[in-house]
Amino acid sequence: MKYDVAIIGGGPAGYTAAELAGKEGLNVVLFEKQNLGGVCLNEGCIPTKTLLYSAKVYDYARHASKYGVTVPESSFDLSKIIARKSKVVRKLVLGVKSKLTTNNVTIITGEAKVINKSTVQCNDETYECSNLILCTGSETFIPPIPGVDQINFWTHRDALDNKELPASLAIVGGGVIGMEFASFFNSLGVEVTVIEMLDEILGGMDKELSALLRADYAKKGIKFLISTKVLAFENAGNGTTVIFENQEGKGSITAEKILMSVGRRPVTEGFGLDNLPLERTERRCIKVDEYMQSSVESVYVCGDLTGFSLLAHTAVREAEVAVHHILGKQDKMSYRAIPGVVYTNPEIAGVGQTEESLQSAGIAYKSIKLPMAFSGRFVAENEGVNGMCKMLIGEDGTVLGVHVYGNPASEIITLAVMAVELGLKTEEWKRFVFPHPTVGEIFKEAL
Amino acid sequence: MKYDVAIIGGGPAGYTAAELAGKEGLNVVLFEKQNLGGVCLNEGCIPTKTLLYSAKVYDYARHASKYGVTVPESSFDLSKIIARKSKVVRKLVLGVKSKLTTNNVTIITGEAKVINKSTVQCNDETYECSNLILCTGSETFIPPIPGVDQINFWTHRDALDNKELPASLAIVGGGVIGMEFASFFNSLGVEVTVIEMLDEILGGMDKELSALLRADYAKKGIKFLISTKVLAFENAGNGTTVIFENQEGKGSITAEKILMSVGRRPVTEGFGLDNLPLERTERRCIKVDEYMQSSVESVYVCGDLTGFSLLAHTAVREAEVAVHHILGKQDKMSYRAIPGVVYTNPEIAGVGQTEESLQSAGIAYKSIKLPMAFSGRFVAENEGVNGMCKMLIGEDGTVLGVHVYGNPASEIITLAVMAVELGLKTEEWKRFVFPHPTVGEIFKEAL
Repeated sequence: MKYDVAIIGGGPAGYTAAELAGKEGLNVVLFEKQNLGGVCLNEGCIPTKTLLYSAKVYDYARHASKYGVTVPESSFDLSKIIARKSKVVRKLVLGVKSKLTTNNVTIITGEAKVINKSTVQCNDETYECSNLILCTGSETFIPPIPGVDQINFWTHRDALDNKELPASLAIVGGGVIGMEFASFFNSLGVEVTVIEMLDEILGGMDKELSALLRADYAKKGIKFLISTKVLAFENAGNGTTVIFENQEGKGSITAEKILMSVGRRPVTEGFGLDNLPLERTERRCIKVDEYMQSSVESVYVCGDLTGFSLLAHTAVREAEVAVHHILGKQDKMSYRAIPGVVYTNPEIAGVGQTEESLQSAGIAYKSIKLPMAFSGRFVAENEGVNGMCKMLIGEDGTVLGVHVYGNPASEIITLAVMAVELGLKTEEWKRFVFPHPTVGEIFKEAL
Repeated sequence: MKYDVAIIGGGPAGYTAAELAGKEGLNVVLFEKQNLGGVCLNEGCIPTKTLLYSAKVYDYARHASKYGVTVPESSFDLSKIIARKSKVVRKLVLGVKSKLTTNNVTIITGEAKVINKSTVQCNDETYECSNLILCTGSETFIPPIPGVDQINFWTHRDALDNKELPASLAIVGGGVIGMEFASFFNSLGVEVTVIEMLDEILGGMDKELSALLRADYAKKGIKFLISTKVLAFENAGNGTTVIFENQEGKGSITAEKILMSVGRRPVTEGFGLDNLPLERTERRCIKVDEYMQSSVESVYVCGDLTGFSLLAHTAVREAEVAVHHILGKQDKMSYRAIPGVVYTNPEIAGVGQTEESLQSAGIAYKSIKLPMAFSGRFVAENEGVNGMCKMLIGEDGTVLGVHVYGNPASEIITLAVMAVELGLKTEEWKRFVFPHPTVGEIFKEAL
């Protein structure tokens, strides 16, 4: 039997492509070497958000008195928090599996190998296909810092399942993953230090809002070392010593545990990818066109492997575009409005251009900044908490970028996704009836 | 001095019109007899949401163990909750005042009286104006039920400021206001009974979702009497007896307090309104065109006085349209996508058509229903809590109505506002990149 579509990788790109293609009546086979749902569902987006929500509930309890609620004492049971996280993941993995089987997708567990553009091998079986979608994802990047192979460090995977809190934790890399774990362990009372090589945490997000978030977390007790390069790791009796260098010279800190969260890299080797004459980008990612098709006809690439954004929601959309192209439906990928969200507490989210990207592109813009307290609901629900909304507006009034620091930034940023993708002008966006009172009204206030 | 614009009423319609007109350089005078912000800010949307948030924090504490957080005991201090509510209101009223003075609006405190379309009297002074915007709002409707004038009942105003909880509370009217107070007092442990004349609570919202909410609150201990007519009130030693009638015959309940929340009525008399030859609707509201202009040129009507929706966000938008018309800017009012939100816990929200409205208009549609558990974030943040998203799709694929039961429905419904107002088709809406994981993704899942 020849499949219409073979998909390698069962993460957000792979399962979305499989479900959609199956729903549209195509014969689909999906290869996944570990767990359906990929990194996102099993050890990324979903488990972190589940842990962070428990931390938020604990935060609510500790700060309840601000709202007239008395909680004399509160504590947490980390093993229960972890167990619930695992239960949520299992439930959602089953959900993905059920959506795939409902749409008649054949699921093969095993490491697939591409033989040529219409042949895939897995578990000694051979599968023929008319179209191939590569969704092999990404993996944690461990930088070759001296001593790294001598110490016992955590990756996000260990941090997710560790049932005993360290007294102190040094996080190497203050990006999204690093800051989400920093937030979680800070809430639970761990002494956290974040070491970031760049001059601000959360690279890629609005720099001013990232600095606000950093200042707020510094008040909550996290120690930040920015513009700081890690030179070496050394085992210490009670943990690991991190030797670093910054403007002030060399220094060191010792922490019971080290979390390595420098970044992730697309998985561009293995899976027989070299058996295809795929054109590569400078960073060895696979080159694709706006239909997610590689230089080899009928071979598509979606998700982290394209190296574009390494975000689950980008992968989902790319998968839809690829399947639509296979089906002959008109569609193409747009990277104009890909939101970025950090699930700290408060959250930070943004979409479209940043001041930094506009400046480096030489595009003229106006920046509107509004404290989140301009939203009545924000005031009602955030006692003693600050926040800011920043809008970047082009000379013709088009909304170019929107950045929010304050809960629930993750949910309201999607409004800005729609506005930026549609190319709405301020006057146009302002004319919708935003329900009152909501935090989302901050956009209407700012416009 | 002749003002460009005189505005009667400082609620959401009035203050929005004043701020915008002032910002655009017009000379504006605003008359308010009580507090800037109107009912919405002083005794409606904002104070209720502040109280409800305290109740939510208390709910979080009581159910913390579901998320691995241990809270051995929790209680609340109602006087602190009320005091915080008043503080939030004061802060926001000051915010409104500051926005008005920043935009050079003259604020007159006193009851204004219209003399003719270009003359308003207040505190024995006379003010001339080129344009008049009437925003006199609405007031609580107390139905003429036998005995009502003999008992000591609460309106929403009393319920907001009462510092001692009754043991039991009967709420007459299960609409939005009634259900929000039912939710608040239920969370705080009061024995609540909701009496509703219609066959479902929350008239105007999606009936199926309203029934789900009712079932969930019944589990939490609220007693519902639907399709039930109140015949009379009688004083009882320990409170008030409500005598009612429904399918099962006559009955009665006695509660320590009664909250009257049958509805609100536009304030269509007084203020010298009769001095203008204003065309009226059947319900005595003022007739307006799509620019919010009444039958008298240069006299505009915004907010509850139009009788359209009695919602603050409708009022805000109407005010913008009126001012734009005065300024000669192209704009007109659209009631296509006015959201409705109920801030119970969980929240319920909807926009556009309901199944009921489509059926009565004879419009063909497809209904898509999805449990909220199809959103990974919803699962992560709602242990043992159900929810549902319902989409109503026209024959050509246009999104006609969207209804959500589950947190944070209030914030994500604005996405549906944009989709419905723009007349997006499912395929179009689905192509935006919804951030993952968010509850808002439920729309993408459903599409």
